[in-house]
Amino acid sequence: MARWQPDAPGRLAAAALDLFEENGYENTTVSEIAQHAGLTKSTFFRYFPDKREVLFDRDTVTGLLVEGIASAPPAAGPLDAVADALDALGRTFFSADRREFSGRRQAVLDANTELREREALKRIDLTASMIEALEHRGVPGLTARVAAKLGTLVWEIAHDQWIDTGNSEDFGPLARRALADIRATEAMR
Amino acid sequence: MARWQPDAPGRLAAAALDLFEENGYENTTVSEIAQHAGLTKSTFFRYFPDKREVLFDRDTVTGLLVEGIASAPPAAGPLDAVADALDALGRTFFSADRREFSGRRQAVLDANTELREREALKRIDLTASMIEALEHRGVPGLTARVAAKLGTLVWEIAHDQWIDTGNSEDFGPLARRALADIRATEAMR
Repeated sequence: MARWQPDAPGRLAAAALDLFEENGYENTTVSEIAQHAGLTKSTFFRYFPDKREVLFDRDTVTGLLVEGIASAPPAAGPLDAVADALDALGRTFFSADRREFSGRRQAVLDANTELREREALKRIDLTASMIEALEHRGVPGLTARVAAKLGTLVWEIAHDQWIDTGNSEDFGPLARRALADIRATEAMR
Repeated sequence: MARWQPDAPGRLAAAALDLFEENGYENTTVSEIAQHAGLTKSTFFRYFPDKREVLFDRDTVTGLLVEGIASAPPAAGPLDAVADALDALGRTFFSADRREFSGRRQAVLDANTELREREALKRIDLTASMIEALEHRGVPGLTARVAAKLGTLVWEIAHDQWIDTGNSEDFGPLARRALADIRATEAMR
């Protein structure tokens, strides 16, 4: 099976995903993950504080989103800045060779309460980073909160569709369409 | 100190809050909570599966929100149905005699990662219940998701203001105003 597997944290995440799928999250140890990745336990702890973190690469995602919001054209409205950032994320992080990994990862997260909780908190922290990045553009606080909340919903919808194996569209265009669909709903009036 | 303290689960929550504040969440046991509440450990486990759940009373909150959305006038739009539900919650649950407890509770949650994670997941489950209740009214799926996300933001803003000791307004009016303010933001265009 072709597998997205570049650097050490990526190899550790891929190894963890294999083992969580095979033996369950609870029954997998950090030593086993490191061994399966052909790395040492101390290398693991250089990148992740514990087992629960190994499937989360939010520093990268947060950095890309914040950068994308910052570099949107000055005239772009708050939601358009968020859409630009999601586009950038689609080009650089949610690329086609990560799709299969992301789908398997999401299935493992969804099946485990501990991981769902960690994901829920990461989502809140990510939303907070987006709010901050929007405020840096001069967007007023409440507007930034609304745009970030809606941006998170765009993300969720586009990500669900992107990891769907029946779908082959890229993340960016899926996010653009989700945003347009959201803007057209009755709830936005 | 006057304390909101009615039934057994309420007494257990109040006792837990006292002890978490005094000794920290990590250093408090279920036995100590039960003893402080004048109840037995087995009574604790009749109401809560573990220590981490004792400050969450989401069945009640979820039930009241779902009921509020269901009983909104048939002509009410999705966001107005959510606003009606938050009004109902303000009248029956977030009443003035719960304000002090809620403020202390939030401070304890904010200070502990385990509790923040549990809260984040509860918020997701609550949003899912609101989406389902809106769909029951015939609201299309995406519109229901947008309305529930914005409803959660209304909740967060109103709750923050309500527990602010410098404030004496009721939860319902605070939620109404937060919704009106959100609707007026640029992000809603």
